[in-house]
This record gives sequence, C-alpha cells and structure tokens, in this order.
Amino acid sequence: MMGTYHSTLTFQTNGNCDMVDITSEVESVVRASGFKNGICTVFCVGSTGSIITIEYEEGLLKDFPEAMERLAPVEAVYEHHLRWQDGNGHSHIRASIVGPSLTAPFVDSQLTLGTWQQIAFVDFDNRSRSRKVEVMLVGE
Amino acid sequence: MMGTYHSTLTFQTNGNCDMVDITSEVESVVRASGFKNGICTVFCVGSTGSIITIEYEEGLLKDFPEAMERLAPVEAVYEHHLRWQDGNGHSHIRASIVGPSLTAPFVDSQLTLGTWQQIAFVDFDNRSRSRKVEVMLVGE
Amino acid sequence: MMGTYHSTLTFQTNGNCDMVDITSEVESVVRASGFKNGICTVFCVGSTGSIITIEYEEGLLKDFPEAMERLAPVEAVYEHHLRWQDGNGHSHIRASIVGPSLTAPFVDSQLTLGTWQQIAFVDFDNRSRSRKVEVMLVGE
Repeated sequence: MMGTYHSTLTFQTNGNCDMVDITSEVESVVRASGFKNGICTVFCVGSTGSIITIEYEEGLLKDFPEAMERLAPVEAVYEHHLRWQDGNGHSHIRASIVGPSLTAPFVDSQLTLGTWQQIAFVDFDNRSRSRKVEVMLVGE
Repeated sequence: MMGTYHSTLTFQTNGNCDMVDITSEVESVVRASGFKNGICTVFCVGSTGSIITIEYEEGLLKDFPEAMERLAPVEAVYEHHLRWQDGNGHSHIRASIVGPSLTAPFVDSQLTLGTWQQIAFVDFDNRSRSRKVEVMLVGE
Repeated sequence: MMGTYHSTLTFQTNGNCDMVDITSEVESVVRASGFKNGICTVFCVGSTGSIITIEYEEGLLKDFPEAMERLAPVEAVYEHHLRWQDGNGHSHIRASIVGPSLTAPFVDSQLTLGTWQQIAFVDFDNRSRSRKVEVMLVGE
C-alpha cells in the first residue's frame, strides 16, 4: 500500500564546513515508515547547508573544505557581504552549487548506499547554528 | 489517496547566468495538486540550465556567476566549441556540475523551504532562450 | 494505480572520468514498469561515482574532466590519500560535489529529457571497476 512518511531531524552544527553523519538517523526513518521499497528525500531547510554522500572518514573531512576553498574562497569579495555584512557569501555559493537535497532509493527497507558511502549534512555557514533537515519517504 | 500531478512551466531567459525565481510558480503547482504531503521534482529540460535553491537577492545574483567563472571560465578552451562553434562549452559544463533537478518535500501543502531559500532556474547558455521546466509531484 | 518499480544496472567502467551513457537503459526501466507518469531516481552505489545529465558528445567528454581538474586536481595533496594510500582523494571529492543521484520525471512513459540531454554515469575513481546503479521509479 503506497503512502508518504515524514520526519524532521534537528541538530546543532559548528559552521565552517562542519559535517554531520546523519546516515543512521535517516535509516531509522526508513525503518519507522514500515515501507519496503521506495525513495527517500533528505532536504536541508535553509540556504547555507547541503546534503551529500561521502565516505565519512577523517581524511575527507579535511579534503572537502579544501575543495570548497577552490570553489568559493572565504576571502573572495562577495556582493552578498557588501550588502548584508554577514560574512557568509561563500556559504551561500557553496550550498547552491553542492545542493540542498539528496534522493536515495530503499529496497527491502534498506537504503541502497555503498559500504563506504554515508549521508552527511554539511554546514557551510560561518557560525554555529541549529539545523533542520526534512526527510520525506514515498514508498509501499 | 496517492497520486502524481504534473505541470510544465515555460518562460523566457536571457542567458549568461540569468536566474529566474520560480518559487511561487512551483508553490502554485503544489496547491493545484490538492496533495497535502509528498515530494516535488523540478527538472530543467535541456543541457545548459540548472535548478538550484538560493537566497534570491541582488548580491548573490552577482556572486553566483563569479563562482561559475572559477568552475568553468567562459574564456577557457572547450573541445565542445571547437567541434560545434556554438561558444557554450562552459554552459554545458556548469549545468552538468550544478545539476538539472531539484527534489523538495512538501508538508501540509507547503514546500519545506527556509525563509531565505528560493527555487531558481539558472540559464547557463550564452544567449536568450525559451525554457521549459517540468514539475512532477508524487503525494497524497 | 500507484506503485514502485526497481531495477539494478551493472556495468564495467574505466575510471579517470570515464562517462557511460545509460539513457537507454533507464528508458527501458521506465517502459518495463508499465507506469505512465511519475519520477525516476537513478542512484550510484559507492562514493566515487556520480550521475549527471550532459550532451553526450566527444567534445564535452574531454571538457568535463578538465573542469574536474579545476575543482579537485589529481595532483593536489589529499589527507584521504595520506591515510589510506589509495590515490583517489580527488575521486571522492568530485563525487561528493557532483552528487550520486538524479531524479527525473517521466510523462506518458517518456523521461522528460531534452533532445541533447543524456543521463551519464561518471566514474571518478582512479581504476577500472564494476559498477552498480539503482533505478527506482514511483509512479502510476
């Protein structure tokens, strides 16, 4: 029987490319739904965070911010900052390019992730924040 | 009662990172569907445009194109151009990286966007064009 | 009548930005499902590959890897490599930024792709691999 199932995750982040592994929280939502097969959309509410998949290990936690520096350096001139003085122009740009949303299938109540592939929230903002991630399943 | 709901948006764009805020159009599709909960996929038809979320304000409308210049400069040498002479190699590369598709949840007939998070179409092409965006909802 | 339909694609890739056009395979899954309208999620299992849309032609097959070199150069220093000695730090970073997942609508049993817009798997790893892509449809 097809349906939707919704859950909101909330947590604290530290800013500056802080990455939070939310794989087990998303897996819990899939189990709680009772669905066997379907898709799971994980969505960052707000314009300075992203949802990615990554091998969540110490090395890449350092390498990913380096790549973000090439893409949108903290010290570049941002019109956003000149207008609003909030110092987070780079945060918005990074979040728009990487994207706020991940959709992954689940089969037999398991997300189809690889063994070394985790779901992570990335906080691109320049300060600690309280974050909200919406998880919506469509399945049966 | 689960179902799908489909609508096509069409509009004119100016090329060269022109960004169009389509949030209210997408919200209208969600309302028209009569669904309360589900997911909404917004898809750019064509290989030189993208769908992003961004705080749609004057500063970032200038900063985003700057970041695209770092990613795929207009003046770089593109094999695509050498073969087809259409001058839009950078457009294709930008669109492939940023991506053609956004999937966002809706809850109680509202997209779960943040207050300063809009849905925008970005035209990466190098000329004015007529654009088509497909919106498909799955919900109940 | 709403439902889900699942299929797994498997194929061999060559690494180093090898791109495989999987459009016709994904179209076959849509036809096999019997659904008329819905959405199709194409998901790369593993953390060194991505799903993109692109005009699949010889020029861009050379231009896309060039852009990836700007984003995450092969020869940069990666902490991932310093820890695991597998030489594929750049592969992980590229895959996380470009993303593992594509969701596209289908209408009247046809994906809503543009004429010059194909679905491609990109192998960012540094060696030949056997790859698995999960396709999940939700539709009616």
